[in-house]
Amino acid sequence: MAKINENFTKLPGSYLFSTVARKISEYGAAHSDADIIKMSIGDVTLPLVPSVVDALHKAADEMGVQETFRGYGPEQGYDFLRDAIVKNDYKVRGINITADEIFVSDGAKSDCGNIVDIFAKDNKVAVCDPVYPVYVDTNAMSGRAGDFVGGKWSNLYYMVCNEENGFLPDLPTEKVDMIYLCFPNNPTGMAAPKDYLEKWVGYAKENGSVILFDSAYEAFITDENVPHSIYEIEGAEEVAIEFRSFSKTAGFTGTRCAYTVVPKALTVDGVSLNALWNRRQCTKFNGVSYVIQRAAEAVYSPEGRAQTQANIKYYLENAKIIREALQDIGLTVFGGVNAPYIWAKTPNGMGSWEFFDYILDKTRVATTPGEGFGPSGEGYIRLTAFSSREKTEEAMDRIRKTLK
Amino acid sequence: MAKINENFTKLPGSYLFSTVARKISEYGAAHSDADIIKMSIGDVTLPLVPSVVDALHKAADEMGVQETFRGYGPEQGYDFLRDAIVKNDYKVRGINITADEIFVSDGAKSDCGNIVDIFAKDNKVAVCDPVYPVYVDTNAMSGRAGDFVGGKWSNLYYMVCNEENGFLPDLPTEKVDMIYLCFPNNPTGMAAPKDYLEKWVGYAKENGSVILFDSAYEAFITDENVPHSIYEIEGAEEVAIEFRSFSKTAGFTGTRCAYTVVPKALTVDGVSLNALWNRRQCTKFNGVSYVIQRAAEAVYSPEGRAQTQANIKYYLENAKIIREALQDIGLTVFGGVNAPYIWAKTPNGMGSWEFFDYILDKTRVATTPGEGFGPSGEGYIRLTAFSSREKTEEAMDRIRKTLK
Repeated sequence: MAKINENFTKLPGSYLFSTVARKISEYGAAHSDADIIKMSIGDVTLPLVPSVVDALHKAADEMGVQETFRGYGPEQGYDFLRDAIVKNDYKVRGINITADEIFVSDGAKSDCGNIVDIFAKDNKVAVCDPVYPVYVDTNAMSGRAGDFVGGKWSNLYYMVCNEENGFLPDLPTEKVDMIYLCFPNNPTGMAAPKDYLEKWVGYAKENGSVILFDSAYEAFITDENVPHSIYEIEGAEEVAIEFRSFSKTAGFTGTRCAYTVVPKALTVDGVSLNALWNRRQCTKFNGVSYVIQRAAEAVYSPEGRAQTQANIKYYLENAKIIREALQDIGLTVFGGVNAPYIWAKTPNGMGSWEFFDYILDKTRVATTPGEGFGPSGEGYIRLTAFSSREKTEEAMDRIRKTLK
Repeated sequence: MAKINENFTKLPGSYLFSTVARKISEYGAAHSDADIIKMSIGDVTLPLVPSVVDALHKAADEMGVQETFRGYGPEQGYDFLRDAIVKNDYKVRGINITADEIFVSDGAKSDCGNIVDIFAKDNKVAVCDPVYPVYVDTNAMSGRAGDFVGGKWSNLYYMVCNEENGFLPDLPTEKVDMIYLCFPNNPTGMAAPKDYLEKWVGYAKENGSVILFDSAYEAFITDENVPHSIYEIEGAEEVAIEFRSFSKTAGFTGTRCAYTVVPKALTVDGVSLNALWNRRQCTKFNGVSYVIQRAAEAVYSPEGRAQTQANIKYYLENAKIIREALQDIGLTVFGGVNAPYIWAKTPNGMGSWEFFDYILDKTRVATTPGEGFGPSGEGYIRLTAFSSREKTEEAMDRIRKTLK
């Protein structure tokens, strides 16, 4: 008789954002006049920029004509996109990453999730707490997390991120093998300075660990001393895989394109992780749509860069508006400077779900309760800067008027 | 220290199609005058049909405008596409599959590969021999195949497909838990009649097995008694998952869209595989690009259907030309009636690599050696009907003139 992967049955039932969505919809149903503003989900709202739309049109036309039609593309991505990535995201920062170290995909979520395929089950995995749930759930599914007991997985090493350590977790006090780091961080919105990342690269080298570095939000970095890539740290190419995405950089959440960097210098016990990931992708993936790769390429054109950077600036201004409003009503606020996320401390020791309900009821503004990202998220809520300016201002007006 | 998934190191080095490509390119380099016609790779050559191109343009425009822009879509696919699939691929055949049983993805290769995530490691897996390599390699990667010894994996159950059984393998003589079936078949091009599939559904019910049914080539079916879906068999919804693709149906190999059907009636030990696959996809996948889903939807419009069916007819005519030419030179030929693949027996007991080299050298026509698809593929070569009419005719002329 067939047997299922029992690890799936250990996963707690509902996904954070489904619960938040259900609560919002129930509240809306119970209050028919409620004009709810969602600042809960990290999804972009500005349309694709003109350069990207033009590239989609051009590629669609090419696909309709015999001479320029494309069938199966390379599983790793077309050279035109891999070369543009190397030139614009790495070479300009003095980083020596080559095109054959870039793997284009349909999303950083897919890559962050699928990367576990190339690792043995008996690796000790370290995750931040609070954390983007995908790192945790995919390791749970593949049997690396143990059992879920009292809100925590028995085999994971949780790296607490709190006010005391500035949301930059301390190095582990026991040996860990796979380390998930995300900077600028989701959900705290905090960025990591260079000397902090150097400590992690040092730790990984000393302990033979692999760093899984999610830099999906690098486009939001405004501080000069904050690295955009883990490879700005000397020697990182020997210990780190980097995940990047066009989702937040260029509003591709519904267009789907991302990439993962697996340097050839990264080996585990003499085995090249670049070769393993290449084999994984060639066997279980057939590349990203040609038209979508052309759209991603257009993000790097001079016009595309100017247009997408204007959008990033727009969202960062939203973040500033949110930060200032929350500070005005007396909250302690983190993030929102190098990231589209604002992480606010609940007042008077309120629980994060309690504060979520309170704000929703008093102002009809939806947030995300920090506890949904892990035990150490308790006592915080997350707001996102991806709404329109109008809605962001309206939401902050309501918060100022009602909660001050 | 981090540890890799050791199963990857057990995989034999080179992928069949890479080896074929290398041999062709080496031959081309050594014979500068060689005008090689590739009938080796199963990739379409006709451009996207006008309805699909129009849909891409329309969706690109929508994405560039605030009012119609789309961010994250449902991980399972948009309702407009899931509903079109249900209506056109199932309801019309009297099959009661519902939209929430359809999971839209970027490719059947991804789904066939990723489906192993939801199964335990200790399932006995049955694969056809010869076989599409993805089923084998993905089970090997996840530790379900054992060790590769003498051209076979120690823990897999190989179902021999040969001339004696008409390339329709016999039911297993030992209990197997996961059964990969692909009809119309790649590489043999043979289709399965209804009563044959009924035997498999009966076997699966009796033994609690799950059938993984790949029907990527169903659009090529011409015989009326050949089912297009496993769900045309009574009770199959309790034992089978079906993989479908727009790749060959509508020339989407470079556009990337497919779907997988996981019926809600399909349970293993009381657990719903629909729920498990949904959880897997929601955690490790973020849906297919909106513009691509609109392109796939256009395949079901009256114009889209007429246009794509004309392309299928074109390829099937190529298949007929290939069949007849190979028969003319005295080869025994299978497939190519309900499928774009022609499976030809090598003459005089020649090995399949030997015959591959012989045809390439004598006619500059590239084929795929059957042995690359598994031990029982020895003694056969595969040709594909996806070339242009002109090249197909030219290739067959050369074969007729040189090999008769």
